[in-house]
Amino acid sequence: MNRIELNKIYIDKLIKTALEEDLAYGDITTDSIFSTDDRDVACIVAKKSGIVCGMEAAVRVFKMLDSEIECQILTPDGTNVAYGDLLMVMRGRIQTLLKGERTALNIMQHASGIADFTNRCVRLTEGTHAKITDTRKTLPGLRALQKYAVRVGGGRNHRFNLSDCVMIKDNHIDGAGSITVAVESVRANIGHAVKVEVEVRDLKELDEALKAGADIIMLDNMSCDMMKQAVEITNGRTILEASGGVTEESLAAIAATGVDYISIGALTHSVPAFDISMYIGNKVCAGKIAEYEKAHGVKIFD
Amino acid sequence: MNRIELNKIYIDKLIKTALEEDLAYGDITTDSIFSTDDRDVACIVAKKSGIVCGMEAAVRVFKMLDSEIECQILTPDGTNVAYGDLLMVMRGRIQTLLKGERTALNIMQHASGIADFTNRCVRLTEGTHAKITDTRKTLPGLRALQKYAVRVGGGRNHRFNLSDCVMIKDNHIDGAGSITVAVESVRANIGHAVKVEVEVRDLKELDEALKAGADIIMLDNMSCDMMKQAVEITNGRTILEASGGVTEESLAAIAATGVDYISIGALTHSVPAFDISMYIGNKVCAGKIAEYEKAHGVKIFD
Amino acid sequence: MNRIELNKIYIDKLIKTALEEDLAYGDITTDSIFSTDDRDVACIVAKKSGIVCGMEAAVRVFKMLDSEIECQILTPDGTNVAYGDLLMVMRGRIQTLLKGERTALNIMQHASGIADFTNRCVRLTEGTHAKITDTRKTLPGLRALQKYAVRVGGGRNHRFNLSDCVMIKDNHIDGAGSITVAVESVRANIGHAVKVEVEVRDLKELDEALKAGADIIMLDNMSCDMMKQAVEITNGRTILEASGGVTEESLAAIAATGVDYISIGALTHSVPAFDISMYIGNKVCAGKIAEYEKAHGVKIFD
Amino acid sequence: MNRIELNKIYIDKLIKTALEEDLAYGDITTDSIFSTDDRDVACIVAKKSGIVCGMEAAVRVFKMLDSEIECQILTPDGTNVAYGDLLMVMRGRIQTLLKGERTALNIMQHASGIADFTNRCVRLTEGTHAKITDTRKTLPGLRALQKYAVRVGGGRNHRFNLSDCVMIKDNHIDGAGSITVAVESVRANIGHAVKVEVEVRDLKELDEALKAGADIIMLDNMSCDMMKQAVEITNGRTILEASGGVTEESLAAIAATGVDYISIGALTHSVPAFDISMYIGNKVCAGKIAEYEKAHGVKIFD
Amino acid sequence: MNRIELNKIYIDKLIKTALEEDLAYGDITTDSIFSTDDRDVACIVAKKSGIVCGMEAAVRVFKMLDSEIECQILTPDGTNVAYGDLLMVMRGRIQTLLKGERTALNIMQHASGIADFTNRCVRLTEGTHAKITDTRKTLPGLRALQKYAVRVGGGRNHRFNLSDCVMIKDNHIDGAGSITVAVESVRANIGHAVKVEVEVRDLKELDEALKAGADIIMLDNMSCDMMKQAVEITNGRTILEASGGVTEESLAAIAATGVDYISIGALTHSVPAFDISMYIGNKVCAGKIAEYEKAHGVKIFD
Amino acid sequence: MNRIELNKIYIDKLIKTALEEDLAYGDITTDSIFSTDDRDVACIVAKKSGIVCGMEAAVRVFKMLDSEIECQILTPDGTNVAYGDLLMVMRGRIQTLLKGERTALNIMQHASGIADFTNRCVRLTEGTHAKITDTRKTLPGLRALQKYAVRVGGGRNHRFNLSDCVMIKDNHIDGAGSITVAVESVRANIGHAVKVEVEVRDLKELDEALKAGADIIMLDNMSCDMMKQAVEITNGRTILEASGGVTEESLAAIAATGVDYISIGALTHSVPAFDISMYIGNKVCAGKIAEYEKAHGVKIFD
Repeated sequence: MNRIELNKIYIDKLIKTALEEDLAYGDITTDSIFSTDDRDVACIVAKKSGIVCGMEAAVRVFKMLDSEIECQILTPDGTNVAYGDLLMVMRGRIQTLLKGERTALNIMQHASGIADFTNRCVRLTEGTHAKITDTRKTLPGLRALQKYAVRVGGGRNHRFNLSDCVMIKDNHIDGAGSITVAVESVRANIGHAVKVEVEVRDLKELDEALKAGADIIMLDNMSCDMMKQAVEITNGRTILEASGGVTEESLAAIAATGVDYISIGALTHSVPAFDISMYIGNKVCAGKIAEYEKAHGVKIFD
Repeated sequence: MNRIELNKIYIDKLIKTALEEDLAYGDITTDSIFSTDDRDVACIVAKKSGIVCGMEAAVRVFKMLDSEIECQILTPDGTNVAYGDLLMVMRGRIQTLLKGERTALNIMQHASGIADFTNRCVRLTEGTHAKITDTRKTLPGLRALQKYAVRVGGGRNHRFNLSDCVMIKDNHIDGAGSITVAVESVRANIGHAVKVEVEVRDLKELDEALKAGADIIMLDNMSCDMMKQAVEITNGRTILEASGGVTEESLAAIAATGVDYISIGALTHSVPAFDISMYIGNKVCAGKIAEYEKAHGVKIFD
Repeated sequence: MNRIELNKIYIDKLIKTALEEDLAYGDITTDSIFSTDDRDVACIVAKKSGIVCGMEAAVRVFKMLDSEIECQILTPDGTNVAYGDLLMVMRGRIQTLLKGERTALNIMQHASGIADFTNRCVRLTEGTHAKITDTRKTLPGLRALQKYAVRVGGGRNHRFNLSDCVMIKDNHIDGAGSITVAVESVRANIGHAVKVEVEVRDLKELDEALKAGADIIMLDNMSCDMMKQAVEITNGRTILEASGGVTEESLAAIAATGVDYISIGALTHSVPAFDISMYIGNKVCAGKIAEYEKAHGVKIFD
Repeated sequence: MNRIELNKIYIDKLIKTALEEDLAYGDITTDSIFSTDDRDVACIVAKKSGIVCGMEAAVRVFKMLDSEIECQILTPDGTNVAYGDLLMVMRGRIQTLLKGERTALNIMQHASGIADFTNRCVRLTEGTHAKITDTRKTLPGLRALQKYAVRVGGGRNHRFNLSDCVMIKDNHIDGAGSITVAVESVRANIGHAVKVEVEVRDLKELDEALKAGADIIMLDNMSCDMMKQAVEITNGRTILEASGGVTEESLAAIAATGVDYISIGALTHSVPAFDISMYIGNKVCAGKIAEYEKAHGVKIFD
Repeated sequence: MNRIELNKIYIDKLIKTALEEDLAYGDITTDSIFSTDDRDVACIVAKKSGIVCGMEAAVRVFKMLDSEIECQILTPDGTNVAYGDLLMVMRGRIQTLLKGERTALNIMQHASGIADFTNRCVRLTEGTHAKITDTRKTLPGLRALQKYAVRVGGGRNHRFNLSDCVMIKDNHIDGAGSITVAVESVRANIGHAVKVEVEVRDLKELDEALKAGADIIMLDNMSCDMMKQAVEITNGRTILEASGGVTEESLAAIAATGVDYISIGALTHSVPAFDISMYIGNKVCAGKIAEYEKAHGVKIFD
Repeated sequence: MNRIELNKIYIDKLIKTALEEDLAYGDITTDSIFSTDDRDVACIVAKKSGIVCGMEAAVRVFKMLDSEIECQILTPDGTNVAYGDLLMVMRGRIQTLLKGERTALNIMQHASGIADFTNRCVRLTEGTHAKITDTRKTLPGLRALQKYAVRVGGGRNHRFNLSDCVMIKDNHIDGAGSITVAVESVRANIGHAVKVEVEVRDLKELDEALKAGADIIMLDNMSCDMMKQAVEITNGRTILEASGGVTEESLAAIAATGVDYISIGALTHSVPAFDISMYIGNKVCAGKIAEYEKAHGVKIFD
């Protein structure tokens, strides 16, 4: 399957921010020890099995420091890797390798962490037609990267911001007076390319939202029993999204209720880093690379 | 204890980035339902017990959208709160409250997550003289915020970037030929305000690093037994830092070895969000506020 | 009716860009003649009848130069003004008034031009249920301002960018092999908050797009006759959008075909400035202000 | 004739802004259908006759997304093209072509619109020695691009900002007390590289401005008769600029009065987009390209 | 005399850059010792006599960190102060005073250094009609600040950049073939608001430049004798600017030749900081302030 | 000796700022005279003997304008050149050479000025073990460039900002109550990678600072006699830094006292530009280049 790519302008800007943070007044250790002529090989290796993400971003990190560095991605974003798998091989100045290392790993570990956790959630719902989706619970400046990683993990993206989808919550309903009036108010303002989602807490609200013609109805913190009833009542008339405190434990049961989407804040706000290491130097890399070349019948950097 | 504050220029810029991401072409739901005159009260409440962080950043989020919004921080950064505690109360335009909500919560939940997890680690080492410190394993653009949250949680900050402390790792040692030469090489370049840290993997390397006059020695992935020996051998001549795969489970044992610092990447790269909610509307807030005012004998927004 | 507001972070940044362009090394004329103490009154007046827009942005221009300037908006965005109507009155330092004048007028004239032209199109379709919508044919950096002005004029916003709505065009259909495959391919990738629009050039394609379940179908450069047939065939099953070379002359006939939306690139790419002037000095403003105060029974700047 | 080029740093920044606006979270349609390997040819074609502009900026749009894309400009900025003329041919990844299309066209259509309209004005004054010049009535962030397009169309640039030329208007004259004092005040402050322009409304003011030694005198909203008299009185002693409500209809008559420059705000604030289309795919482009190659005896992309 | 002010958007951006550089991860010394409630008084004092500059920029430094800080400028930009004079008094949080100190002083010392050195040059030419002017030999990002300081010191600004004045140098003359052709070439491109300056190395070139109608002629590295002849030959027909290796020693003699302007690169590229100190604490400030209040019969911070 | 390099992201940003300042609306002189096809050779020559710096930054200036320009650095940063030495040779478009000239020279002259002055100070202390170090007295936005130039000149960098080293000054001591309490307060907050420096004014304070365990003690404005005593008392227990009003005249005597470091604000705040010229055109460059090639037995641009 093809995949929606990151906005190149965005990711370059983000990487610049990260490199500026880290390089500051220069890498005082590396530059004191290595000359700009010292060259070597490096490899990036998974220290955990799962879905990896952020390969091309990592390449950009090194290229931005040194356009002559050579980088070979061996496991494109979305690959399911095993512990010890070789993800990427690089060749060029040691200074570049050492200066980009931390920034590249920070991005890969975070993005892979999200992709892998998303994928775990996706697999927990296999056999149902429920899809996993993210939320706006992202970190400042990282939304596009985090939402990209969700896609790489097999999840879907919920709205990107407050402009591209209406989401009518309890405060909006209170302010408007009713779900019906709230939906009418937004319909009078928005464009035809925008969907209207309504958050409901019980079956009475569900009924009103259905009548108001909501494009998506979010079932907020409902029990699985109530969600099942909601699925029956709705009967395919609109999209149902389960939301609220979803955990790995509760996921299968929620998916079994028949809802269409399950949104999970934790995909982006509480995900552990995926363990990935970088090794520099022919000494440590040669074996790994030879093994890979043999296994895949290819030659890296011929 | 006083606390080192965030750089104001930095945090304002970060918040602008986050608001620009989220507000995009406007909050199409809120603005369709509320007028700019609608005003109300809101409160932010802990849904978990622990150390909170990001209060002033949250205030800046709302102030940046609307300089007339009133905000009262009830639990300054570093407060140990209980589930249900009122953290902050706001009064002003509903539009402002709804537009800033997600951005403010995203920041508070992440910062509090870090502060609280750091504090848990700090408490696990109580009774020893080991201090908890962070790493450069941070997210792009968030380093200053994340390192601030570590301080709020009672942790200490390791170096901020590649310029403010030397860190001689295995690649540097290989490149230089020996720890001794590596230390000499950096000493020939760096300023007197910069410390030299050397990463060692066994007691032989420890010995060489001690002789080379390292200001800090990092014990990389050593067993607790070996660390104990390292502490004895070192005998206070330099600072010892334990590092590598530290978990909540292994923390107490590591601290008991007598090392001075324990650095933990997970403080910033794998921390779950701290659950915090925001409620808007007098209906839901009045009770909470009255209760707080009674308990503390104060009047919020008199 | 409430209106979706501009993202404050965005508009402030845009205004800063404009002021930086214009002020450069200072206003060498004004500062050579006036002292920082010279104060006066200014008024902004319509030199054309129609819908005005950009009032609050204009206020921000002056406030950004001088927080003490007083500004009173008399005709909020969306007001239908007559030639000669007083739109805004200001009081404060002459230096501020002169330095902000051109930037404020440039923004107001462009935004009002768009709002007014949009409104003219809206009025040309009165009596039909066709709504006017914009396109992505906007100017670099101005998209949010231009799309805001369309809303102020009574138009609706089409998608904001390449991420918030699918638009399957002829190249995509060719690439996929058919409309059906194209729709399936995007459905396999996108989130549930995103609509799928398909561009069709004849009734055969319309039929396929309907079967494929397109949320919106764009009738690309069709004759009015064919559009009428399309409306009949569709019979409310999906949203129909007319597009391609729409002019003020052809608008009423297109609307009469029964389509739901008419998208017009000219709303943002070819709109003439709305003539607005600014007068500085009590001499020229006093009469205008007195007249306004009498007519409206109010006192500006009491 | 050589032409003053756009500042490269500026135009790259502007294009980045535009691409960031449009690409946002990725092109969800294109990336769902095409793989990164799909490659094709595209051509950009004039749908109107006239002067084109923005060719190199368009190339930068595509190059910024993908440094490997091949672009051939066939009609450099300033070329007078006929309806249907091939302006540019590209070859490379379809994803790049589709992602850059709208941004490139938006810039070319706007820049060409300005260049072509400017050129129409220039031609309307042929046979006189009057030159067409622009104003500061530009759009936020676009001033350099717009003023470049004016030059491409054969017009001249008036001052770029408030710092590089003095412009004494009625408010300045009122503030100073007289034209004479105003000119003296600015002369006491400004550098020798800066000219002094004075705006006059009648022949008495003209006389005073001449005596005060103005480098340029702007005849503000004068009748053609009065302008003729002004030209006679001035008799070449200084530069005369006609200004105020100039239209295509009045232009020839104004030029015939003998003034040196005619400034027209509409060149930048009210210009319609120049119709330009982009076609992607060998199917539609091959014929156009073959025809061009035959006519010009050249081979594009051999 | 009024003075052309700095572009407010520019100076705020520059100060933000400086504060971000210096504050980085916080002022770890100050925040460890003082609480946010500690308040005190500070005063800024000249440690040298001469012209001071940068007062308002310094105020912005502190205000940007803390909008509640009180600042009183006692010697506005351009004041000729004596050693020990009180320049500014502040009152507010000690944290703010300490965090802004270095940034404010760095700006004031540099700006005052330029203003004072410029003024020394101005005074060295008193009695002649030669004016002192700067060049484009400025530091990255500081051009507007440096050129402002030159104005404050009584100097004039030469062109701000490569766009606002033509400067024909030897390479241009070689490229064009002759001064005459070079002047014609630029006249065919530039606007009427732009002057044409030609650099000449001998009297033959001067003659050609005069005939070509140059608005300004730069006498490049000529001897005083040759400059005198140039002044006689020119006889007021155009502006003459002396340039090239001007020093404090040679200045009076050059001015005596009768040239109109003398441009000096050293005004901005080689100027020593003006010594200014800041004292914090009532203990050290009270006496200074009392003395000032008595001398001027005023009350600071009543 | 290897040297710590500038952060590439930083220097590129700084150069962009400078080029944007200077190029503004284009180089109206150059582009009017030369076509984009005109090509030539240029060379950069020292007009003074001493240490040069900024070579790679200068290359970036030209490359940023035109990736095809060829640049050969002949004297890498830190080279001690003689008057007339060839520093760099370039070949490519004349437009690029002329547009980048001023920006490249401004950076080189400032950076070389600092490196050379630093080196003069270093040489004045030869034979002692005192090292020269800089301060935070830098210009807005230039700190990293200026501190890099200090390193190139053989100096050392003092702290980069308020976060990476503690500096306890008199205000902090007053605020804390004593040196001892101040040191304890900061030790309770800071990380183990940060040193603590204390400023002392007499031997009593020195004694307290030593007892408090300061990592560095700054001897503030002490006489050479007192500094000698301080060196004796300290006897190697900590690092001693002399500071305050150091001049080229007093430097040798201070170094002779035995202090470890001498910090000099003038290295960055009061340094004169290093005279460097750029010549364009084969006519003037060919001889210089031939001479260099003969002397070094190499071929530039073969």
